[in-house]
Amino acid sequence: MPSVTPKPISGFPELLPAEQLVFNRCLDIVRETFERYGFAPIETPAIERKSVLTSKGGNEKEIYALSRLAAAPGEPSDTDYALHFDLTVPFARYVAQHKDKLVFPFRRYQIQKVWRGERSQAGRYREFYQCDIDVIGRGAISLLHDAEMVAVINDVFTRLGIGDFCVRLSNRRILQGFLDAHGLQPEQSLPTLHAIDDLEKIGADKVRTTLIEKAHLNAGFADALLALIQDHMQLPTDQALRSLEALADRLGHAGLAQGVRELAEVVQAVRAFGVPNSRFVVDLAIVRGLDYYTGTVYETRLLAHPEIGSICSGGRYDDLAGYFTNEKLPGVGISIGLTRLVLRLLEVGVLKAGPATPAQVLVTTMDAAHWADYLRIAAELRAHGIPAEVYLDKGRLSDQLRYAARKGFAFAVIAGSEEFNAGLVKLKHLADGTERALPASALAESFGKWA
Amino acid sequence: MPSVTPKPISGFPELLPAEQLVFNRCLDIVRETFERYGFAPIETPAIERKSVLTSKGGNEKEIYALSRLAAAPGEPSDTDYALHFDLTVPFARYVAQHKDKLVFPFRRYQIQKVWRGERSQAGRYREFYQCDIDVIGRGAISLLHDAEMVAVINDVFTRLGIGDFCVRLSNRRILQGFLDAHGLQPEQSLPTLHAIDDLEKIGADKVRTTLIEKAHLNAGFADALLALIQDHMQLPTDQALRSLEALADRLGHAGLAQGVRELAEVVQAVRAFGVPNSRFVVDLAIVRGLDYYTGTVYETRLLAHPEIGSICSGGRYDDLAGYFTNEKLPGVGISIGLTRLVLRLLEVGVLKAGPATPAQVLVTTMDAAHWADYLRIAAELRAHGIPAEVYLDKGRLSDQLRYAARKGFAFAVIAGSEEFNAGLVKLKHLADGTERALPASALAESFGKWA
Repeated sequence: MPSVTPKPISGFPELLPAEQLVFNRCLDIVRETFERYGFAPIETPAIERKSVLTSKGGNEKEIYALSRLAAAPGEPSDTDYALHFDLTVPFARYVAQHKDKLVFPFRRYQIQKVWRGERSQAGRYREFYQCDIDVIGRGAISLLHDAEMVAVINDVFTRLGIGDFCVRLSNRRILQGFLDAHGLQPEQSLPTLHAIDDLEKIGADKVRTTLIEKAHLNAGFADALLALIQDHMQLPTDQALRSLEALADRLGHAGLAQGVRELAEVVQAVRAFGVPNSRFVVDLAIVRGLDYYTGTVYETRLLAHPEIGSICSGGRYDDLAGYFTNEKLPGVGISIGLTRLVLRLLEVGVLKAGPATPAQVLVTTMDAAHWADYLRIAAELRAHGIPAEVYLDKGRLSDQLRYAARKGFAFAVIAGSEEFNAGLVKLKHLADGTERALPASALAESFGKWA
Repeated sequence: MPSVTPKPISGFPELLPAEQLVFNRCLDIVRETFERYGFAPIETPAIERKSVLTSKGGNEKEIYALSRLAAAPGEPSDTDYALHFDLTVPFARYVAQHKDKLVFPFRRYQIQKVWRGERSQAGRYREFYQCDIDVIGRGAISLLHDAEMVAVINDVFTRLGIGDFCVRLSNRRILQGFLDAHGLQPEQSLPTLHAIDDLEKIGADKVRTTLIEKAHLNAGFADALLALIQDHMQLPTDQALRSLEALADRLGHAGLAQGVRELAEVVQAVRAFGVPNSRFVVDLAIVRGLDYYTGTVYETRLLAHPEIGSICSGGRYDDLAGYFTNEKLPGVGISIGLTRLVLRLLEVGVLKAGPATPAQVLVTTMDAAHWADYLRIAAELRAHGIPAEVYLDKGRLSDQLRYAARKGFAFAVIAGSEEFNAGLVKLKHLADGTERALPASALAESFGKWA
C-alpha cells in the first residue's frame, strides 16, 4: 500500500510536459535576448546567510529559513541559512564579494527561482522564476543604459509574441521634486507616493481619499497632484515632456528639473535604440520601491491583460550594495516575473500548450527484422539536429501512431521490408495524414525540405 | 558602513561569469541531447512535503527542512516542507500524482538543483545540479530502453568533448544470482554487495578483508567472487558474455541466467544504437542502490579523471513510485551530476573559462555625433543572431578596447565620421589585432563571412 498520497502544495506550480515546453521556450527567448545584448549569466546559490537576506530589513516574514532535519551529533544544524526571496539582494552580495574580479560596467543576467513564504492566493506563487538584468558601474554610468533596458524589454516581449505591451516610464525625481517644491515633508511625501503607487489598482477616487485622509494633503493639492499625473499620461510623449519642462521652469526646483532632463534624455535614447513610440509612455504614477530607486523607473503592462499587473519592472539606483560594501555601486536594472506571466497566459489561452514531446519525429517500428535500420534513421535525424524518438516497444503500428498522436509528434517515419527493399521510407504528417515516400539514405535532408 | 561582510558558504558553489558561461554551455549540451532523443522536460518544485521526501527513509540527516522565519500570527509556519535532495523521489511523486494525464511510456528529463545538508568536504557540494532522464512504463518496457540510455550517455559526453569515457554495464541479477547459487542468505549477500560497490575506491585487498570479516565469506569464496569480477572486466565484451553464459549453464540458476541474457541483449542493442565498443565495458562490480535497481545498472567514468568517480549512473527498476501509488511503474534512468563534473574539469583545466561575456562584438563609440549609428549597427547584428554590446559610456577608444579585451569580446566595431562618410566601419579581431573595413550597411552579413 502506498504510504503517502501525493498532492499539490498551493503556491508551488508544477506543469505537465506540454506546458513545461511552452514555459521553457519562453525562458529561452528571455535568456537569448539578454545574451544578445551582452548580459553575462551568473547564478547565486538558492541559499544565503540570514544576515545577508535580512540586511535590508522589512520582509522577514516572507523568508523561508532552513535547518537540517536531523543533523548528526556534533554537526552544525545550519540554522543560519535561508532561501533567497529575490535576486537583487544575492546579486548585491555577489558584486560586493567579487567586485575585484569583475569588469565594470558589469552587465549580468540572472534567471532563477525565488521563494516567498507568504500566504498563497490566486495568481500569487511561493516559488517562481525571476529574470533579472542589471548594469552596475564602479562610478557613474550614462543614461543610455536606462534607455537600453527599454530596448531589451521591447525585444523580449516582441519575440515572446504575447500581444501588445507598453513600457511606462518615469523618473522618481519628478514626483518627488513636485512634492518637495510644494513644501511637503517626508512624513507626508512618503505616504503620498505610496498612495500614488496604488493608482492603477484602486483608481483615482480611492487614492484621492487616501491622499487626504492618510497623507493629510489638502483636497486642492491632492487634485492638482492627480491631475498632474493623469494629464501627462494622456499627452503624446513629446508634449508631456515639454509640459514637464515648463512645470520645472515654473516651480524652479532643481531636482524636478533634473528628473525632467533625465527623462527627456532617456526617451530620446529609447527612440535611438529603435523602440517604436507605441511601446512606451510617460507615466508619472510609476513609483516603485521608495528606498531603492532614485531616477528612471519602469513598469510594463500587457494591454489585453492588465490584471497581470506589471510584467517587467525596474529602475535606476544610486547604491546597489551599501549593506555589503563601502563602495558606492550605482546601476540600473529590470526584472521579469516569468512564472506569473506564462501561467496566466496559459490560463487565458494566449499561450497554448502544444506537443508533450520536444521531438518532431517518431520512428515507428513495425518489423523487428529492421531494428538496426530504425535506430540508424533516428541517429541520422538527430545528427542533423532533428529531435527523433524511436518506438522501442512491441506494438501494432496503429497503437504506435496513436501514441504519436497523443504525444503530439509532427511526423512519423513508417517503414517495413517493402519500403526498405525499395530504399524508401514513408514520412507521415500526423496532423493532416499526408504521406511521402523519401529515400531512406537521405531522410534527414529530404525531411528538412518538406517539414 | 556595510552591515554584513559577504563571504562564501562552503559547499555552495558560485561562479564568475566566464566560468558560468562554460557551465551553462555544458548544461545546454546535456539538455539539447536529452531533447534530441525525445525526452520531455518537467520541473518539480524545489520544496516537497517532508512526508514525501522521507517516504523511502534512510537519508533524513541530509534533508534541509524549512520554516517561515517570521510568520504573521495565525498564519501557518510551513514547517512540514523541506528541500528535495534528489530528483528521483519528486519524480516518483510527480508520476504517481499525474499519471492519468501522462502518455506512457513516459520519457522525461529533469535538470534542477538539489540540496544536501551534509558536512561539506572537498569535491562535495551541498547545492548542485542533477540532470536526469527516465523512461517509465505502465506495464513492462523493452530492454531497448536500457540500451538507449547508453546511447544518450555516449552522445552527451562525446558532445561535451571532455575526453575519453567508458560506460560500465552490468545487470544486478548476475552478481545476486551468483551469491544465491552459492547459498548466501541476505545477511551475507547484502554486506557482500556493499563491499563490492567499494572495489574501485578501496581496491581488491581491502574488499577481500571486508568480505571475510564483515560479510563472513570464507576466503576461498571471497577470492572466487573477486576473480569473477576481475576476470570478466578484462575480457572483451563478447568473450565476457560467453563466459557468463557458460557460468549460468554451470550453476543452473534462473536469475543469474536471466541477468546474463538481459545483459547480452542490452549489449547487442547498444551496438545497434551506434555506440562504439570502446565506449562501454561489462563490469560486474557495478552494484548501485540495492533497494531500488533490479536489472541493468550503469556507471560512467572519465578515463583521465577517475578521481571524479562516476559522472553518470543509473539503472533499471521494477517499481518507481511504490510509496505513492499501488500501480507498479517499472522504468530505467540515468543521472549526471553536472556541478561536480564541470567544476572539477575547470579546476584541472580540461574545461577552460573563456570570455566573460556572451557577446561576440563590442560596438565602440568614439564619436558622440554617431550614437544613433552605433545603436543601429548593434541592433542589426542582434537581428542576425549575433550578440553585440554597445559601449554606452563616454571613454577614449583605447579604454573601450581595453574593456573589450578584459571581457574577452572576439571583435570590436570601430567607426567615426571618416568611416561613416565612406559608408564603412572597421571590424577589429581583438585576439590578433587584424582589422577589416566592411560596408556599414551590410556589416551583419559581412561579419558572418569573416568571423
